[in-house]
Amino acid sequence: MRIGVLGTGEVGRTIGSKLVSLGHDVMLGARSPTNEAAEAWTRQAGHGAKHGTFAAAAAHGELVFNCTAGRAVMEVAAAAGPANLAGKILVDVSNPLDFSQGMPPRLLFPGNDSLGERLQRALPQTRVVKSLNTVTCAVMVDPARVPGEHDVFVAGNDAAAKARVAEILRDWFGWQSIVDFGDITGARGLEAYILFWVRGWQALGTADFNIRLMR
Amino acid sequence: MRIGVLGTGEVGRTIGSKLVSLGHDVMLGARSPTNEAAEAWTRQAGHGAKHGTFAAAAAHGELVFNCTAGRAVMEVAAAAGPANLAGKILVDVSNPLDFSQGMPPRLLFPGNDSLGERLQRALPQTRVVKSLNTVTCAVMVDPARVPGEHDVFVAGNDAAAKARVAEILRDWFGWQSIVDFGDITGARGLEAYILFWVRGWQALGTADFNIRLMR
Repeated sequence: MRIGVLGTGEVGRTIGSKLVSLGHDVMLGARSPTNEAAEAWTRQAGHGAKHGTFAAAAAHGELVFNCTAGRAVMEVAAAAGPANLAGKILVDVSNPLDFSQGMPPRLLFPGNDSLGERLQRALPQTRVVKSLNTVTCAVMVDPARVPGEHDVFVAGNDAAAKARVAEILRDWFGWQSIVDFGDITGARGLEAYILFWVRGWQALGTADFNIRLMR
Repeated sequence: MRIGVLGTGEVGRTIGSKLVSLGHDVMLGARSPTNEAAEAWTRQAGHGAKHGTFAAAAAHGELVFNCTAGRAVMEVAAAAGPANLAGKILVDVSNPLDFSQGMPPRLLFPGNDSLGERLQRALPQTRVVKSLNTVTCAVMVDPARVPGEHDVFVAGNDAAAKARVAEILRDWFGWQSIVDFGDITGARGLEAYILFWVRGWQALGTADFNIRLMR
């Protein structure tokens, strides 16, 4: 399948490499077509890996992952181009972390909005599904790094798009338990969770952790 | 033991009743000494239950729980009186929810501060321990309402105070797993989590849920 991955950071490269290993035709998108991280990734990831601008990656993908930094998300959406993403599923993995005032990060907004909703508003013809942002990228594509049963979440306005993303999470990445967090406003909860995650990471001394909803 | 509980809402009354049932001498604190909810609670909770002002409840307790609404916390701390709380452990159960712009709530601040830290700054001679705010009040005092293993968290600057609160959570309320989230700044993660909790509650259709950290 042709897949676009927006963002050349660790998250984008990790998801991109996993998708290439599954045999997909993956284009990593960056601000510049000569992005160094993207060029290095293309050489390493091998057959099926290519890179280009945000617009080229968005046009390339039948399915697109947004793996850009929270503060850049809206600029990336504009650069990718609403027309290039129209009718497509965009899996939004981003987190609204603001490092501008140093560590630890704060949220870009106090939970009255979310990057998922902002993307959905900016891209009304795209089916945005928030997911995977609640775990470290190695766990996103290999949930078995964390022993036992644990959950990943999906939030979005389009039920069919959420079902397709759930299928991808299960069949491609190996997720066993996928919890529906409702419409795209569910992203508010999933994004605010990142501050809990940061503290959990500090407390546990490892990023290889996740949560299980117990009821 | 003499215990003060600040706040006459559902959380304060639930924790107060549990403490009375364990044989403690509990004073529920309110803005007014003739608060109706506190008067009704005192009648219902029976022997060992009394009520008074925030200052009276703070002075009464050898240990104090803060169960007031997020937007009122600093005003309550001032009314309770730093001298009345000096040298004592204050278990802060509050959440920084802002309902002023309707439902769903937003956070009072974007994770660059927390009610736990604000209380600790306002009450430098008090040992503030953030805990219990990540579950509904019925689960706070009866974790077995949620089957299986699941976690409660403590954050605070004083290790001995955290150890004492952990003991109370285990011996009085029945918590099996208590996770240390570090110093009082850990409250930022525990408080931002409430937006995740709100969405989990909507998704699951029950407030009787919690999370288990898997690693």
